Amino acid sequence: MVKTPIRETKPANSAPPSDSRQRVSALFKGLQDEICQGLEALDGQEKFQEDSWQREDGGGGRSRVLKGGGVFEQGGVNFSEVWGKDLPPSILVQRPEAAGHGFYATGTSMVLHPRNPLIPTVHLNYRYFEAGPVWWFGGGIDLTPYYPQVEDVVHFHQTLKDACDRHNPNYYNVFKHWCDEYFYLKHRKETRGVGGIFFDYQDGQGQLYRGPDANGSAAQLSQSLGDQESRGWEELFTFAKDCGQAFLPAYAPIAERHKNTEWSDRHRDFQLYRRGRYVEFNLIYDRGTIFGLQTNGRTESILMSLPPLVRWEYSYNPEPNTPEAQLYDIFLKPQDWLGNPPSV
Amino acid sequence: MVKTPIRETKPANSAPPSDSRQRVSALFKGLQDEICQGLEALDGQEKFQEDSWQREDGGGGRSRVLKGGGVFEQGGVNFSEVWGKDLPPSILVQRPEAAGHGFYATGTSMVLHPRNPLIPTVHLNYRYFEAGPVWWFGGGIDLTPYYPQVEDVVHFHQTLKDACDRHNPNYYNVFKHWCDEYFYLKHRKETRGVGGIFFDYQDGQGQLYRGPDANGSAAQLSQSLGDQESRGWEELFTFAKDCGQAFLPAYAPIAERHKNTEWSDRHRDFQLYRRGRYVEFNLIYDRGTIFGLQTNGRTESILMSLPPLVRWEYSYNPEPNTPEAQLYDIFLKPQDWLGNPPSV
Repeated sequence: MVKTPIRETKPANSAPPSDSRQRVSALFKGLQDEICQGLEALDGQEKFQEDSWQREDGGGGRSRVLKGGGVFEQGGVNFSEVWGKDLPPSILVQRPEAAGHGFYATGTSMVLHPRNPLIPTVHLNYRYFEAGPVWWFGGGIDLTPYYPQVEDVVHFHQTLKDACDRHNPNYYNVFKHWCDEYFYLKHRKETRGVGGIFFDYQDGQGQLYRGPDANGSAAQLSQSLGDQESRGWEELFTFAKDCGQAFLPAYAPIAERHKNTEWSDRHRDFQLYRRGRYVEFNLIYDRGTIFGLQTNGRTESILMSLPPLVRWEYSYNPEPNTPEAQLYDIFLKPQDWLGNPPSV
Repeated sequence: MVKTPIRETKPANSAPPSDSRQRVSALFKGLQDEICQGLEALDGQEKFQEDSWQREDGGGGRSRVLKGGGVFEQGGVNFSEVWGKDLPPSILVQRPEAAGHGFYATGTSMVLHPRNPLIPTVHLNYRYFEAGPVWWFGGGIDLTPYYPQVEDVVHFHQTLKDACDRHNPNYYNVFKHWCDEYFYLKHRKETRGVGGIFFDYQDGQGQLYRGPDANGSAAQLSQSLGDQESRGWEELFTFAKDCGQAFLPAYAPIAERHKNTEWSDRHRDFQLYRRGRYVEFNLIYDRGTIFGLQTNGRTESILMSLPPLVRWEYSYNPEPNTPEAQLYDIFLKPQDWLGNPPSV
């Protein structure tokens, strides 16, 4: 019996519906609204201020910032929708089929810097691209605690896994590993935090992992799973929606749990120091930041992710047997948070 | 009369002396010593602490940091000497002749973050490379004031020009423009500060400007000057030495002039905000930082350039007719500081 190669039985990257751009941008605008409302309720003190902006080369967005709140020292939630002639080289390397075509991109992104060092920083970004013959969804959510709390991390990951499991039993596992690999500071040999999920170039075809690191564990896992069942545009649209909507239930209970906990200068110093890693990641590695700066995006909106106050300290090392050391030893390395959570 | 093309009359990139590496590394070590002594005298309170380190793939260095001083909130002066198999791609683009050859690189780099916002931040870096058939010197010095003081800037530029003029009447002019173009934050449309001098890939051949921007004013100026008189290894070695030794006379008088001037929270807030631009430049654009991180350099030494405390503020704009606005309007744009200084 001759076995047909699996990839040939799959449909090509199917055409999106004719109103795809309107539907995705409405989804991402709605997500921005929903998240801002939820965060204002959580903050209890300040509201988001909005700036609408136009991009000279096509498109625009609305940036919302909350400053000096009860919970959030600073939080930014952006929506943007841009189009233009050529995708930047950093994307064309991964999507050569898009070369020579105009592009359309829309997305929602968010970074929250809480004041209380016991509340983790968190990031969300979902985006959608069309360029000539190709379209894809990408994005993720990841958590960056300053002080180690296993219970928080398990809750965060479980909420994201539940959203993933409604769509594909393999999503969480692959996208969790992809997240650990993507939010990694190579020059520090540290993960940015405890991860979450991350995916890119999801167009419904073949393997789940479509990233640059063919030897990483996300790639190997994806390969071992083989090609997925055919996933059309509608399915991935709904998946992106569910992931976005998982954010508030994943994060709000963690912030609620710690928002009234007292903290000291020691906590604050460590928080400001660790925020430096956030800056390093976003400016050196982050795909969204680099895309924005390369396409003449609105700098203030792109760099809204940077923390309001940051410290660097030459040659800092946490003292052994402290919560700070525990963060480094356990929480800044990939862990199987749901299958085999570390005992601390 | 037939005019021989100038380039053909020039010698090829002449071989360096047999003890080139020892001589340059001794020069750069000596420069580190000299600068540290001068800065300790200026600071009057704290001393540099040294860490020696070895690089796994070849070489090492000595990092010196002064923290919490009378003048300097943080200052770092590094010496390093590294070697290995391949130069990173970012350099090979500019020096394709080096591909496939082992490399040797040594250099001194320094960044000072004074506490008093009336004293500018300053940076110095001089470096030397050998790789197969090629060798070159590179580096520069540039000044980043927080509050506008024309007198300081003129003194700084004049001291650097004097050092340049002892070697070639065109150096200052070309390297000053190169500096303005190199220390430029494209995403902010701002220079990093008031510049100084910057050069790279100086191997004694042809045109002075050897950078990537063929349409920039440094490139055009260099082109209009034609090929330079032959400059051998010894001449460029002495030039690098003179540039390094120009640092203390260029900077120390500026720091002395302001170190006892009172400053307020307003000055401090603005300084912390502007330090954010230093971080953005170093992590997004700086060749030395990227080289270090790409070659598995010692991260703590490379990122010693980052300020001890930094602020980001969404959508900050200085109020019109303030010193802060003057900084943006005049000091963060290229100026002819010596020929036609702005009147403020």
